[in-house]
Amino acid sequence: MQKTISTRELAEQVLARCNKLASFSETAGRLRRTFLSAPMRDVHREIASWLDPLQIATRIDAAGNLRALYPAGRNSGSRLLIGSHLDTVPNAGRYDGIIGVVLAVALIEALNGQKLPYGIDVVGFSDEEGIRFGVPFLGSRALVGLLDETLLQLKDAAGISIRKAIEGFGLNPAEIPNARLDNSLPDSHVCGYLEFHIEQGPVLGQLGAPLAAVEAIAGQTRMEFSFLGRANHAGTTPMNLRADAVAGAAEWITVVEDEADTTPGLVATVGSITTLPGAANVIARETRLTLDVRHRDDDVRKRAVEKMTEQAEQISNRRGLSVQYQIRLDQPAVAMNPFLTDQIETAIRAVGCKPHRMMSGAGHDAMILAETLPSAMVFLRTPGGISHDPAESVLVADVEKAIACGVHLLHQLASSPEFLKPEFRKGTHRA
Amino acid sequence: MQKTISTRELAEQVLARCNKLASFSETAGRLRRTFLSAPMRDVHREIASWLDPLQIATRIDAAGNLRALYPAGRNSGSRLLIGSHLDTVPNAGRYDGIIGVVLAVALIEALNGQKLPYGIDVVGFSDEEGIRFGVPFLGSRALVGLLDETLLQLKDAAGISIRKAIEGFGLNPAEIPNARLDNSLPDSHVCGYLEFHIEQGPVLGQLGAPLAAVEAIAGQTRMEFSFLGRANHAGTTPMNLRADAVAGAAEWITVVEDEADTTPGLVATVGSITTLPGAANVIARETRLTLDVRHRDDDVRKRAVEKMTEQAEQISNRRGLSVQYQIRLDQPAVAMNPFLTDQIETAIRAVGCKPHRMMSGAGHDAMILAETLPSAMVFLRTPGGISHDPAESVLVADVEKAIACGVHLLHQLASSPEFLKPEFRKGTHRA
Repeated sequence: MQKTISTRELAEQVLARCNKLASFSETAGRLRRTFLSAPMRDVHREIASWLDPLQIATRIDAAGNLRALYPAGRNSGSRLLIGSHLDTVPNAGRYDGIIGVVLAVALIEALNGQKLPYGIDVVGFSDEEGIRFGVPFLGSRALVGLLDETLLQLKDAAGISIRKAIEGFGLNPAEIPNARLDNSLPDSHVCGYLEFHIEQGPVLGQLGAPLAAVEAIAGQTRMEFSFLGRANHAGTTPMNLRADAVAGAAEWITVVEDEADTTPGLVATVGSITTLPGAANVIARETRLTLDVRHRDDDVRKRAVEKMTEQAEQISNRRGLSVQYQIRLDQPAVAMNPFLTDQIETAIRAVGCKPHRMMSGAGHDAMILAETLPSAMVFLRTPGGISHDPAESVLVADVEKAIACGVHLLHQLASSPEFLKPEFRKGTHRA
Repeated sequence: MQKTISTRELAEQVLARCNKLASFSETAGRLRRTFLSAPMRDVHREIASWLDPLQIATRIDAAGNLRALYPAGRNSGSRLLIGSHLDTVPNAGRYDGIIGVVLAVALIEALNGQKLPYGIDVVGFSDEEGIRFGVPFLGSRALVGLLDETLLQLKDAAGISIRKAIEGFGLNPAEIPNARLDNSLPDSHVCGYLEFHIEQGPVLGQLGAPLAAVEAIAGQTRMEFSFLGRANHAGTTPMNLRADAVAGAAEWITVVEDEADTTPGLVATVGSITTLPGAANVIARETRLTLDVRHRDDDVRKRAVEKMTEQAEQISNRRGLSVQYQIRLDQPAVAMNPFLTDQIETAIRAVGCKPHRMMSGAGHDAMILAETLPSAMVFLRTPGGISHDPAESVLVADVEKAIACGVHLLHQLASSPEFLKPEFRKGTHRA
């Protein structure tokens, strides 16, 4: 029997552990830890050192994911996957991804040896950010059988393929199929996936809410637009004889913003804008810009993108410009499992918090797992919405709430006949 | 007695001569001829070869300007300066500046030996574009005593000062004061300055008018603005919690355009726009842009700039942005001499053209000379408004009209008691 540890102490330990993991970096003074880079080995060893006292063995699958099973109490074939990713962006904060893995361990610790009618399968994904190979979710893709030969041939900036990177880390690419959920522990049945993650946005901060249940991960359209006009002398060309690519683009940007402002839940962003020739005294002949549009409902998003595109053409026609555009990304929304999301809401309320439900504007491993598995996410408030930055933070009180909520949720699920039925997994997961 | 040559033949000769001068370039295949570069010597020799048969001596003053006097018929102390500049921008057309000097020679040829009660002082300025030393109007500055010691110390990209460039061309910087109008021919009196120049804009083309009288050269404000917001995740930040530096700048650009559209004669241009960090999925934290505002009336221009600046602040306040700005240039408008401009209008009408009057949005040597001398300009239609480009062109029929108009103007002035009075020069020239 282990010494009882309070939720507050567990929360403080979570933050201390996130700090510790942040010390394992490819770059001195700044956190950067990409797919199977050397410091990932230190991370694996460190997490294993937390699980050892709990008699939980840690292994690294062929995709570099950390896996550890806290077994079920009775001879149950069920297990709940809980985790997130262990890689980071360059110049990263200490919590994005990491805290979801550290919290999975903390939940097991909070159970203090108590067994549930399902096991807890801790997973720390090797890659979610996609920094090293330009393709995200390499870790979670392996669990659903999507880390295929095409991906394995992708090369990083140094010319090293994913296959070589796996071999270089001492793993065997031929064993990647064994990393698949249904192959990794053939005698057991995975009921679902639960991910704790920082919000990375300002919504919970504005609401004063520590936690949220994520209903869906937004679909995303990414486009590039080019408005084409006529370069001309800024002094000698009267206003009515201009075809000004900057003025046309500016009008369109205000229309894009209006469209997003008036469509509930829609976000639209022009993040990059450049112009040619780009001289103070020359009317622009070309303005290039990017458009990023996201919504939880794919139809709403597609209609908004169509409308914005039509408006770009109308504005261009009226101004004697032409416009060209290309879709760079068209990624459908992914719904989280409604049953699990309701259970999370119940658990949040049970620990005395306002049960906010929200969309995730950013992609997460849960998007990939939701393809084959009932998946759900809990967001932790991110002070100031600051993420992907060393100033990224979480409040210890919020972590405490997350642990309490997680423990409550585990017990709720333990007493849920629906969750424990094999049929539970068969729900539809697409938004 | 010389053989009579038709205006049409003179016009064709003007175009042929412009073509010939365009062959004297610093760069193979592209026209570039900056202040006292080697090909300027060929230009001087070529122009002298046209004036020699007319028994007109050519000299090069200490600022590198070509000067040649067609004397008055009676022992008059009066002379009219006619010219433009002989330098070019990089990758230039064949007419900007050049045609004004070539037309001055053509006008003398068109007189066919006939003398006027004033001399014609042909000038081909050594620098108007300011390409080599970053400061324009070096040639015309010398004529009004503004090519001073500070300017002489300016260095080009190769570290050669203006002083050294003058010496390197075989001229003596100590003689620059002799280039001043009132020193260069001490026994004579300069009545005014006349410059033929291509419009470099689309107005005359749109009007179907070959020629225009220039009423004023626009004043110009050049500014840099920086809209400052908060960088944030394009997916996780709801529209109402954004401080988007691109969206704020775009709204302001539409306001700037509206202001110019609704203020007669005002032109306003945002020619350059960049954003930071400039990523498709990050809300911009900063947008930098340039503003160029021109008008013939300095008060109108200043009020417009004030209003635009206030609007930038209002938009920023409303959006939770801040805005910074700097004035880079605040150059007053320069009025052309009203008497000469009326005379030009009369001459344009006399040769059967619609007498359009207009503002010059671009700067010209006449701006500098107008400081001390009644100055006036005739614009030639520029097909498509295309200038500072190898595709720059003029129509031979328009050149013919310019010659006819010029000859008519010379005769009008010859019979004008007002023009020939020494007091004529004392008018005010500032707008």
